[in-house]
Amino acid sequence: MTDQYGKLKNDMTLFEVMYTARAMRWLKPDPVPDAMIERILEAGIQAPNAGNRQNWLFMVVRDAGQRSRLGEIYRRVSLWVLQRYQHAGRPADQSAEEYQRMMQGGMHLYEHMRDAPVLLIPCLRITACELPDEIPVEIQKAMRDAAPWTAGASIYPAVQNIILACRALGLGTVLTTNHTIAEQEIKQVLNLPPEYRTFALMPIGFPERNFGPVKRRALSEVAMLDRYGTSF
Amino acid sequence: MTDQYGKLKNDMTLFEVMYTARAMRWLKPDPVPDAMIERILEAGIQAPNAGNRQNWLFMVVRDAGQRSRLGEIYRRVSLWVLQRYQHAGRPADQSAEEYQRMMQGGMHLYEHMRDAPVLLIPCLRITACELPDEIPVEIQKAMRDAAPWTAGASIYPAVQNIILACRALGLGTVLTTNHTIAEQEIKQVLNLPPEYRTFALMPIGFPERNFGPVKRRALSEVAMLDRYGTSF
Repeated sequence: MTDQYGKLKNDMTLFEVMYTARAMRWLKPDPVPDAMIERILEAGIQAPNAGNRQNWLFMVVRDAGQRSRLGEIYRRVSLWVLQRYQHAGRPADQSAEEYQRMMQGGMHLYEHMRDAPVLLIPCLRITACELPDEIPVEIQKAMRDAAPWTAGASIYPAVQNIILACRALGLGTVLTTNHTIAEQEIKQVLNLPPEYRTFALMPIGFPERNFGPVKRRALSEVAMLDRYGTSF
Repeated sequence: MTDQYGKLKNDMTLFEVMYTARAMRWLKPDPVPDAMIERILEAGIQAPNAGNRQNWLFMVVRDAGQRSRLGEIYRRVSLWVLQRYQHAGRPADQSAEEYQRMMQGGMHLYEHMRDAPVLLIPCLRITACELPDEIPVEIQKAMRDAAPWTAGASIYPAVQNIILACRALGLGTVLTTNHTIAEQEIKQVLNLPPEYRTFALMPIGFPERNFGPVKRRALSEVAMLDRYGTSF
């Protein structure tokens, strides 16, 4: 089951994978082979990143004690996130049933985060934005203001590659960021140096439910041509 | 060349696509068919996003005047970004030749941004983080502090799906964020309402050079097990 490079073989087409990679919040506790984790992380680092600096770090947590500590923090902060979602109410385009299912999925996820056999935490080393004096002060300020918003451009593409690679190999996962509310606690558990920041918490395991399509609004509602207001 | 859903057919496997989707900075000015743009945007919106709120907006710019305005802003701010990269110097793991090639690619890109037949600008509607009183003040602060860093979790996965879909269809693109230094000017050109923020500028066109693999550090250098310091 390996290709000419000794890697796990997989023949799913790109579009098959993309159109069936829905978020998996129900995972089996069965262990995930190292070769699979390697394959998905290698897929991850094929993604683009700013200036190819590769300031990424992928924390793979298998140890039960560590998973339990992270899971406990995740559960605690997720209760606040749940309150925020309840406060915001059901989106207009979701049925009561869909909304209920999503909220239940979220609750199941935080109750069972620790039970996933692997917790993956993609991080970035955030280097202080050292700028040469030749750059005018107002441009320097604009650069610093934009930095947090675009930092994710160097890690979330890798996260998406990982989500797709998981799907192709028959592994379930889901992208969540709730834990960043307790960023310092998470960093302490992982023993991360100060210059690192976590961007996602991804439980990975064999799925208990089926892969399938996601529900999205029509493209015509979210794409525009040339100027805001003209539908694509 | 269409599948049973009337969509452009493509049989490349996920891993083939991922391992050959390098950044394309040299693009032909030839027009890109609408059906291709539709296909890649639809691939984009299969990606995950926070709470399935789908606050994304994809600005597809074909108009030559608009491309020229955006390209001009991009060129101007990219000169500052170039200075920043020069100030930071060559990364230890890049050869002089690789570094030179990357810098030249960046320069070619800003000189020719306007010539790409399509400029795609993925955006997000950033809703004010309205929080219920039941959430303690310090948790509210932590939520607001984390928000800019994780906002990209709802758009860069879609960006990566778009990059991969482009590659599968034989289109070149590259993810750049330099333009966010001049966010207000860009928003003015696109006539974007205040609540939107742009996250990327992606020129899309048929590539002048070949698809191929990227160069990355070994996985063992960027993945750790259980705690920082233990190599995976």
